[in-house]
Amino acid sequence: MTISPLAERLFNFSAGPAALPVSVLEQVRDDLLLLPGAGVSVLEISHRSPAFLEILEATKSCLRSLLEIPENYQLFFLQGGSRLQFSMAPMNLYRSADASADYVLTGAWGNKALEEARKVGKTHVVWDAAETSYDRIPGEEDALEFSADAEYVHITSNETIHGVQLPATPPNTEAPVVCDCSSDILSRPMPIDQYGLIYACSQKNAGPAGVTMVIMRDDLLERSGANLPGYLNYREHAEANSLYNTPPTFAIYVMGLVAKWLQDEVGGLANMEARNREKAALVYDVLDESPDFFRGHARPNSRSQMNATFRLPDAECEAEFLKSAAAQGLTDLKGHRSVGGIRASIYNAMPREGVAALCSFMRDFRDRHAG
Amino acid sequence: MTISPLAERLFNFSAGPAALPVSVLEQVRDDLLLLPGAGVSVLEISHRSPAFLEILEATKSCLRSLLEIPENYQLFFLQGGSRLQFSMAPMNLYRSADASADYVLTGAWGNKALEEARKVGKTHVVWDAAETSYDRIPGEEDALEFSADAEYVHITSNETIHGVQLPATPPNTEAPVVCDCSSDILSRPMPIDQYGLIYACSQKNAGPAGVTMVIMRDDLLERSGANLPGYLNYREHAEANSLYNTPPTFAIYVMGLVAKWLQDEVGGLANMEARNREKAALVYDVLDESPDFFRGHARPNSRSQMNATFRLPDAECEAEFLKSAAAQGLTDLKGHRSVGGIRASIYNAMPREGVAALCSFMRDFRDRHAG
Repeated sequence: MTISPLAERLFNFSAGPAALPVSVLEQVRDDLLLLPGAGVSVLEISHRSPAFLEILEATKSCLRSLLEIPENYQLFFLQGGSRLQFSMAPMNLYRSADASADYVLTGAWGNKALEEARKVGKTHVVWDAAETSYDRIPGEEDALEFSADAEYVHITSNETIHGVQLPATPPNTEAPVVCDCSSDILSRPMPIDQYGLIYACSQKNAGPAGVTMVIMRDDLLERSGANLPGYLNYREHAEANSLYNTPPTFAIYVMGLVAKWLQDEVGGLANMEARNREKAALVYDVLDESPDFFRGHARPNSRSQMNATFRLPDAECEAEFLKSAAAQGLTDLKGHRSVGGIRASIYNAMPREGVAALCSFMRDFRDRHAG
Repeated sequence: MTISPLAERLFNFSAGPAALPVSVLEQVRDDLLLLPGAGVSVLEISHRSPAFLEILEATKSCLRSLLEIPENYQLFFLQGGSRLQFSMAPMNLYRSADASADYVLTGAWGNKALEEARKVGKTHVVWDAAETSYDRIPGEEDALEFSADAEYVHITSNETIHGVQLPATPPNTEAPVVCDCSSDILSRPMPIDQYGLIYACSQKNAGPAGVTMVIMRDDLLERSGANLPGYLNYREHAEANSLYNTPPTFAIYVMGLVAKWLQDEVGGLANMEARNREKAALVYDVLDESPDFFRGHARPNSRSQMNATFRLPDAECEAEFLKSAAAQGLTDLKGHRSVGGIRASIYNAMPREGVAALCSFMRDFRDRHAG
């Protein structure tokens, strides 16, 4: 069955849940009533059925290959999004009542992670860009002083609300690095062996909402205490191979299809990164052409390849921008309600054509509205 | 598009994830690339988009109507399944360090719930059918002695592994009744106002895996302490109208379609209960015809309308039964790995034809194998 996606579908710049590859959606649709080999829908199969176990292993295997996950790292799937991880990370990794962890704050999500860690124990803020409204990441001039006894160092690789992104290589610290990678996992290669724990909800680059990927170094699993709430114990999930309880089977299935798309159609994460850099450059070039009209939030060297955030001269102009964009099939460009302005989220599945259409619209809008 | 489900699809007796109504699957398929009015797939829409907010409200409204949820009860959606609820209920409802809760144990799931409560505080087991391998629910001869100061009384309305089910009307207690209703919610009417808190994962009667429904009496929300892990705080989710963080949008969407199916095609929960009673009676009649061959686990007055559990004369015969059934398109009849034997799960969406096919197979198998 052939459906022309561009004729009917809009370009969706939502920050998440976000655009998915059309070929993935088509396969989900075509197999929806009868998953090949299963005799029923993927929505109906038991999580312990051979059909689902095959999906689970194929998904894990593809993600391990794409991300080059070393053998001494576990990969498992949870529910509850990053919000649950904000609590699980400290609850599992703090080893004593007076332990402490370091947090690097580059935006709103890192702050929310910190808030949950503070309920668990002591924390130390190593760096915080609040003063400049989270418009930048730490640079070479910022000597980060990590605590000698930190249980871990927490970073947020990409901040969707503020539009800033850290490099794929994390800071060099003695304590294990814990990374909220929700909004840029699978968008570029990353040296997994330089991290201790990576968690990422799925609804940006990896699939639909409803599943959270966890990548954890083996030795850290030993920290999970037996008295933790069962569902919040990383070790339980790792030992049960994501079947501690019924996992979100459908979300894992779609994530597996997205991973396969990345492998087979995109050709891996290096290619994906090249595509993403090119798409982001298209948008940032428009900002840089007219910095008085399109007022980018992030400083150039801190810019996110995933979420371009900017303001227009005034709120009225922004409202007009959103309305005109929607009329041209460019949707969900409104900035997060906490900061306002415009945000174009251009994750993996946003095609270059969508970004080009946005840029063309932006230039046209500027030419009509710039003073 | 018309697809004959019976010609291709198997009858799936899985205990969950389980069969869904074919008309629901067809609608999911037909709208998969383009959700009407949204311009993109339901898998891609933001949880804060008008399209999703409409789905959320329609789903809530339909469930409220079906279950006749009183106005002083909140209805919201979480992730993590019942397992997370096993922890959340005590973590939210215990009001002091020396508080205690009562647990009624009618099977494996109640025991797992108890295990999590024991990590939180004191517990009191009011009744436990372990001695007779959980083959019965409390009867009139069992005078349940609830604690005077219990924070709540926990029950499990239906035990999927042992195949026993409590009546829809809970025990009359002073403390609020907390009910794990995961495997029989929406299968029959129930007096919500006699419960304090009801939680139910979706993958039996309500939808695909990945969403948990919570129904909670307003006053109990006041017990949720500010220092709880954010995602585990009922009050946060209730106040945020299930949008505390990104909810499992697709699972909620499908749950909404299932609720609509119950309302429009089945005609409500009283009709659903009548259908379920009839289907269960078909299976139990076969057991009662040949109690030496089909050895039902649950005592007749404790039988579940959802999961019929039984053994055959020996393990070899059971293996042959499962193999022959599968060859006839009757799948997932194996009992839970912890108890063995056979289990036929006949939730809402299992059609009468499927149950009739099973019964016909059972009689035939018996006639060929009974000594």
